[in-house]
Formats: sequence, structure tokens, C-alpha cells
Amino acid sequence: MRMDKFPVTEMQTRLTKIKKLMQRDDIPSLLLLYKVDYFYFTGSMQTGLLYISTKGESIFFVKKYLKRAKEESPFPLILPLSSYKDLPKLIKDYVGFIPKRIGIEWDVVSVADYMRMQKLFPEVELVDGTPIIREIRKNKSQYEINKMKKAGLLGKKIYEEGRNFLKEGMSEIEFAGILEAIAKKNGHEGLLRMRGLNGEAYTWCVLSGESGGIISSIDAPTGGFGLSTAFPLGASRKKIKAHEPILVDFGAVTEGYQVDQTRIYSIGDLPDKFVDAYNAARKIEKSVIDAAKPGTPSENIYYLSLQMAKDLGYSDYFLGPKGAKVTFVGHGIGIELNELPFIAKGHKYPIEEDMTFATEIKLIFPNEAAIGIENTVWIKKDGYEKLTPISEEILLV
Amino acid sequence: MRMDKFPVTEMQTRLTKIKKLMQRDDIPSLLLLYKVDYFYFTGSMQTGLLYISTKGESIFFVKKYLKRAKEESPFPLILPLSSYKDLPKLIKDYVGFIPKRIGIEWDVVSVADYMRMQKLFPEVELVDGTPIIREIRKNKSQYEINKMKKAGLLGKKIYEEGRNFLKEGMSEIEFAGILEAIAKKNGHEGLLRMRGLNGEAYTWCVLSGESGGIISSIDAPTGGFGLSTAFPLGASRKKIKAHEPILVDFGAVTEGYQVDQTRIYSIGDLPDKFVDAYNAARKIEKSVIDAAKPGTPSENIYYLSLQMAKDLGYSDYFLGPKGAKVTFVGHGIGIELNELPFIAKGHKYPIEEDMTFATEIKLIFPNEAAIGIENTVWIKKDGYEKLTPISEEILLV
Repeated sequence: MRMDKFPVTEMQTRLTKIKKLMQRDDIPSLLLLYKVDYFYFTGSMQTGLLYISTKGESIFFVKKYLKRAKEESPFPLILPLSSYKDLPKLIKDYVGFIPKRIGIEWDVVSVADYMRMQKLFPEVELVDGTPIIREIRKNKSQYEINKMKKAGLLGKKIYEEGRNFLKEGMSEIEFAGILEAIAKKNGHEGLLRMRGLNGEAYTWCVLSGESGGIISSIDAPTGGFGLSTAFPLGASRKKIKAHEPILVDFGAVTEGYQVDQTRIYSIGDLPDKFVDAYNAARKIEKSVIDAAKPGTPSENIYYLSLQMAKDLGYSDYFLGPKGAKVTFVGHGIGIELNELPFIAKGHKYPIEEDMTFATEIKLIFPNEAAIGIENTVWIKKDGYEKLTPISEEILLV
Repeated sequence: MRMDKFPVTEMQTRLTKIKKLMQRDDIPSLLLLYKVDYFYFTGSMQTGLLYISTKGESIFFVKKYLKRAKEESPFPLILPLSSYKDLPKLIKDYVGFIPKRIGIEWDVVSVADYMRMQKLFPEVELVDGTPIIREIRKNKSQYEINKMKKAGLLGKKIYEEGRNFLKEGMSEIEFAGILEAIAKKNGHEGLLRMRGLNGEAYTWCVLSGESGGIISSIDAPTGGFGLSTAFPLGASRKKIKAHEPILVDFGAVTEGYQVDQTRIYSIGDLPDKFVDAYNAARKIEKSVIDAAKPGTPSENIYYLSLQMAKDLGYSDYFLGPKGAKVTFVGHGIGIELNELPFIAKGHKYPIEEDMTFATEIKLIFPNEAAIGIENTVWIKKDGYEKLTPISEEILLV
């Protein structure tokens, strides 16, 4: 078998773009320690780190496994690295100089690694490289959109095939496992990547009936009971019943690119209350997506969704019950599921062309259920495209 | 449904022990930001952070969700926290003083969080709290051993039920998905926790035939092809054939506690070469476990395993092919799969009673296969007990 090699043109475009941002912000070099971050520029997740310099050579240092890194990545200079200690000498030898400032990812790099780097580069100011890393990733290329479309098709398969297995009396976690098996068979890569300590993304969010009403332990509208205090989130041992909403929030990832999506299954008809709520959720989602035009401040869309929920009579349930509401209605997504933009309180930057985000339209009825819809949307110059092509009707079994 | 509440006595024992270590190392307070770390002392993974003080009160601060944290944890003082900014005032109010030194987890806390804490506590020296966090966790209590035994029984179920589904022509990733479904149905919590940036643990390590010979992109003896350059590890789309070794390394986790294990499946008989290699692996494992007596320097066991592999004629394959060998033959395990001890080069500390570790006995035949066995072992005063009770024969289908 052979891996797809990362296209040279895609790589060059990204490198040119980041170097402009580096110049703008006076960061002459970046040293990226986080796999996800250097994958974006090299096309490889082999263990190593990436040195990007605005002047002279940039170097992809590989600890393990060099041969495969070279197969995967068209990066012009890939060097073996046996120890971090060798970095200053190798950079001096190949780039010619050590700059005054190096950007590293302050939001994910540990204090220990920071201290280590500061020791290796005692004269260097280690500034925060995260803002430009996040900035460059917020607009997706056609190459990336194509990968996300693949993930969207994978998601469709998971939800559609899953429909054949859902049965009354099955536990939430059992159904979650079946979805996992379908997903893997169709190429799902298993790990949803999320930036930051304590950010444990997971696919087994199957919340039936009252499980949907449980308040989350994290900054998410839905929680669930989970399996134990060690993982108090997502699918539980609760048996799934007929005529109760079964919310499934299953992120799909293939070739490193993710889409996020939520649908409601039901075994037999749902009570009108929940059908009405679902229709309201769809309306709120439509207003969010319609409003997400290039130029609109992100925060405005969040406030609009609150107004829409109010107009429809769902204020008390939208984005969580009173006192435990989250303050976002969408999150950027790509190779991580917490990329820019956040459609959220306090996020005043404008929506831009080629942003992609997932809509988090969730209505929480404490002690009863969660109702929701979520799609991943690609914002275009004039309009949008949904990357998650699953039927938006309630998935009746 | 109700979660099991963390036993008060277990909590008190742990708190007493960590306070002794804090006094020994002159760390008057710890501020634990990593969920896994505060779970150990509180029994809760609700979003928050834990302040442990050797003098005065200790406080479990909870951002979300307070009610559930109080249900899960018997911690005497649990306070709501809406913003990190409130920490200094709350600590002053409830503990009475801000100490000169506070330990945080340098190995996982980000530079950004460190800077933020330094701003909040400008007079405080933020020292490294990781060494004592690792130290206290290296010896397991009977409560923890019981949880690990549960995980071991779960593992047994996964491997045994999996045997009924393995078929020629199935892809590795398809079989991996089936194992995942079996695991979840039986209470597997999905995420294997591993300390540190870039540490992506995963359960879908199904390596058939030549997939086992692929060199890993990480510091592990087995690699596999994976599904794409974005996840170049573990199960691939390769079809499983009869008469080839199928190595399955599937960590099991329940109630937060993990065991790690590896077995070889085979559809029909295996060639003698691989049967012989498997028998050698079992012998090497036995020598490792027998040598792991309280008092023995950890590193010695690693060197002994190399000697044993040499004596049996497997030096070229043991722990990786020439030029890509890993330098450990076991890793501590508990709520994370990289706890102390490491049975590894350079780890000179002694093995102790109530340590638990997984044996990494892997023989890599490039372009052919991987053969291996792995069990999780509990070291007792006189002897040991395996916590992974799956049959150690080749699992024939």
C-alpha cells in the first residue's frame, strides 16, 4: 500500500501564506511541536517538529520514521533528528542563523517543553505562534473542502447504515459501538482531534430520552451520563426506548479532515412536542446559516440565534437549560474541531469566504430529552454549501 | 442512574500521601489543571481544577457541572468557579494565604495557562508538580487493582468474542471496528488516556501479516500502515489472510482504569517460524515478569530481556528491526498508559510492590509480520499476578 503524497502546490501555498503572516507579526521563525500543526504544512504526522523560517531554509525534523516522512511529504528539506539538543546546531548549519524571536504554540506546548526550548535557545525570545497558526487554518482550500466532503459522505453512510441496527432495548453504548464499527469499516480514522489540554473529543454521543437532558461536564450543550465518573459524558448503559428522541452527534474524520453532525433517530413516532422542537431547531439552523455571510460579525449570528429561539418559544431550552447554557452556536472545523470561527459571544471578527463551521443547534429538555441538528457548512462568496449530506428528517426506525 | 461515589477513605489516603510528598519537596500547594490528575484525588472529571494545600483547606474548584461534581466526589470543600480570575481571592478567603510556591503540572499544562497563572499569582514561584504526581500514582491501592481487574475481564471478553467474527478477507480496520463494538457493548470507555502532547493512544491496533513489519511513527515497537498520512498507525485497509499472524494490541479501560494486552490471532495454522517466535516471546515475557521483583532496578530487566532475546536467537527482531528499536520493554499503567515504572534504558529506580506495568514483548519481522505478547502485571511483595486473563495460546480461528 502507498499513502497519498501531500501535493507540492498545496504545501507551497500554505508556506507562502504563513510566511506573510509571520512577517506581518514580526515572527521570523516558527518551531511547531504539535503534530497536527506541522501536518498542515508537511503532510506528515511522523514524529518530529517543523522549523519555518521567513529567510533561508525551512526544515522538517523527523525523529521517527524518516523514510516514511519522505514518502509522505514533499517538504524540500527533511532531516533526521535524534535529540532536541541538536536543534540549534542544525538550524545554524542549514538556515545560517538563529533568529531573535521564535514562535511556538503557547496553547498546546507544555511548560516543560517551553523551558527546554528556552535552554536550547537562551538568546531567543519564544513568542506565541498560535494566533497565526489559527489564522491561516480558518480559510479552507479546495483541497481541504474536498477532503471534508469525503468525510461528509462517510458520515452519511454511518447514519444510514446505523438505521438498520437500532433496536428498542439496546443500550446507548451498544448502539454507539455499532456506529463505531460501521464508521471504521468505511474508513473513519477514530480520533477526533481537538486542540488543548482536557479536550477529549469522542464519537459515542448517543443520548436517548432523559440522557439528553443531563447537563454536560464540559463546554458543550449536550452531556449525557457516560459510563462512569471517569468518563461522565456521552452514551450510557441506559436502554433505548421507542418513541423517545435519540440524539446522535457523531463526528466523521477521514484523511485527517473532520465534519461534525447531529441527527435525531426515533423508534416509532415521536411525541408532537419533540417533533415541533426539531422543526424549530431546523428553523434556527437555517437562520444561522443564512446569516453567516462573509463580512457578518460572528457574534451577531449567535445573538440572532438566541432571538430566533425566543421568537419560536424555545428560549428556555436552547443551548442548554437556564443556568447552564453554552454561549456558542457553532464552531470552526477542519483538522481540529475547535478551529476558527466560533459563532459565539465575544467573537466579533467577521465571517469569511471559505470558512467551515459546524452548527450546534441543541434544545435541552431537563429530565426529558435533547433535540438538535448539526451540519458542517462551507461559506462561499455568495451562499454556502452543506458538507454533511445526511437526510435532515427525523430518522425513523 | 447513579454514578459510584469515590470512597472517602481512598481519597483521604491519597491526600495524606501527596501532602507528605509535598512537604518533602517543599511544595506547599499544588494547583492541578489536568482532569486526569484531579480525578485521582477527587473522583470527579467535571471541568475544574484542584488546589491542594499542606496547611489549611484544599479546594476542588468546579466550573461545570457543580451539582454532579458534588454527587461524584466526597471532597470536603467543592466551590463553584466562574473564572480563573477569582482563584487568588477564593484561595485567600478559604485557605487564608497564598503560598510562596505552587506546583503545577509542567509536563501537560500549556505555556499559555502557565503565563495566565503567573499573572494571577505574580508573587508565586510556579514549580513543577509533575514528579510527585507521577510518584504517588506509581503504586496502586487495592481499590485500583480491583478496577484494573475489571478492565482485565473486559479485555478477555473483547478477545474471546472477537474470535467469533474474524474472517479471511475482512480488512484490518473492519475487524478493529468489530472489536470496538464488542468493547463498547461490554462497557469499554473508548479513550485510552496517555500523558503528554502528541500522545494519541488508540485501540485499533490490528496488524496482519506484513502490516506488523511496518516501522512505527511513534516510540512504539509496532506501527502499522493506518488509514492515511493523517493517522499513519494501526489498522489499515489491508485484507486479512489465512495463515498469517494477526497481532491485536487492544487496551481496555473501565471506570477510568486501563490494562494493556496483546495477543496473536490466526485463521488456520501459522507457519512454524511464527509459532516458534511466539513461543520465544512468551519465554522472554516470563523472564521479564520473573525478574520484576521489588528492589530490582527497572533498567536491569530491560537489559535482561535483550539478553534473553539474544539467547533465543531473536535479537534482530526484538523491540523493532535494527536501526528502529525502541528502548523499553514495559510501561507502567493505571489511569494513564504511560505511568511509572518504565522498564527501559536509563530508568534506574527499583521496581516496587504494587506497581503495575504492561509488558511490551514484540518481535518485528520487516515485510513479514509482528509477533508479540503483552500482559498487565501487578507486582506483589512475593510474586506477581497477571491482570489480563486471556488465554496465552495463539487464538486460532
